[in-house]
Amino acid sequence: MPEIDFVLVDPLYEGNVGFCARVMKNFGFSRLVLINPPPLGDEAIARASHARDVLEQAEHATLDEVFGRSTIVIATTGEVSKSICTSMRMPYFSPSELRRMLEDVDGRVAVLFGRENWGLSNAEIRRCDIICTIPTSRLYPIVNISHAVGIVAYELAHIPRGTWRVANRVEMESFYEHLGRFLERIDHPDYKRDNTMIMMRRIFGRTALTPREVSTLHGLLRRTEWHLNNKR
Amino acid sequence: MPEIDFVLVDPLYEGNVGFCARVMKNFGFSRLVLINPPPLGDEAIARASHARDVLEQAEHATLDEVFGRSTIVIATTGEVSKSICTSMRMPYFSPSELRRMLEDVDGRVAVLFGRENWGLSNAEIRRCDIICTIPTSRLYPIVNISHAVGIVAYELAHIPRGTWRVANRVEMESFYEHLGRFLERIDHPDYKRDNTMIMMRRIFGRTALTPREVSTLHGLLRRTEWHLNNKR
Repeated sequence: MPEIDFVLVDPLYEGNVGFCARVMKNFGFSRLVLINPPPLGDEAIARASHARDVLEQAEHATLDEVFGRSTIVIATTGEVSKSICTSMRMPYFSPSELRRMLEDVDGRVAVLFGRENWGLSNAEIRRCDIICTIPTSRLYPIVNISHAVGIVAYELAHIPRGTWRVANRVEMESFYEHLGRFLERIDHPDYKRDNTMIMMRRIFGRTALTPREVSTLHGLLRRTEWHLNNKR
Repeated sequence: MPEIDFVLVDPLYEGNVGFCARVMKNFGFSRLVLINPPPLGDEAIARASHARDVLEQAEHATLDEVFGRSTIVIATTGEVSKSICTSMRMPYFSPSELRRMLEDVDGRVAVLFGRENWGLSNAEIRRCDIICTIPTSRLYPIVNISHAVGIVAYELAHIPRGTWRVANRVEMESFYEHLGRFLERIDHPDYKRDNTMIMMRRIFGRTALTPREVSTLHGLLRRTEWHLNNKR
């Protein structure tokens, strides 16, 4: 991914600026650019919380400076009525599409977020290379600027969930074998056995058991077997 | 998608409750459930903005009531250090995975969001069916509750971007044909022609032109041809 500047154009409320800094940092972004911001005081700092560094290192710039140095400039816009299919706001892309469009870009990318009350002007949108619109409900499409920044940051960061090891084939087969012996032990009718084992494979197959979970299930079977064999 | 209750467990700040109502409505959700909320006054209403209806219709309930009526209850948790791989918080799923897990569920689903200062308790998480964690930066993983609600709502709603008609095969072939004639008209060297036309197909193929854009490009070519033929 290229470096991404999150550019707030004429933000009105310091609280929103602080919230934007915070949610950017939540997703690993730190390049906050402010164009003509309001005075940033206690409320901005409070809302930035542990992203005070992002807020304090925010760059104050002009729109011309942003365009001058950016390979690609993206306008974020609210959803427009279907009748306005002009080149100004169409075609637009969702934040997840944006990620795929940008992932191979080499250079600096700026994403512009407009004023809380009326967004980006047509003149600003006209200069941008790509239009990004967060798909919203038609009933209330106006997303708070920090929520818009959050969703774009979440999608562009696309931080992997992280992985856990799922039990492998050998571990699972050993578990199913144990389960099969167990069914025998409790006199599960022979003629039902195959179908029941298939159901067990379906159930445990789709849950993607971790090795620890498999080992706990083995343990439960063993403990039950012990009680069956040593009835008290 | 099943009906989704967004449940705020012991929220501390009325502003956050208002913001949660707003961003829920942005993505078409309206079932806000409040467990032991703070008094909701002017700030909650201001932040809810045009989602005041969601705020005012919020249901006050107990956690037992939520569990009693929900087919599936999901705990949202912050990212945990890798060392805590207990069944309490693992395995966890990202909001986009959650959408796929829920889309065929028939019944009522509740998503729990914990307190702003320390999230959900272990006792609360223990009762939940699925753990959902928003993948965040390790540097600052604590997401404001309204941003967490926003991202989960955005993913669960998964509102389609909407579509526009892309120029069809006939329209594109007619455009390429025009472009080929144009190259001939400006004496583009024969031996380069094929490669240049391939490049044109690559360029315009990947931009997915709209019919209107194709028609404008035709117009530009025609206008240029006129000037070539009527030199002034």
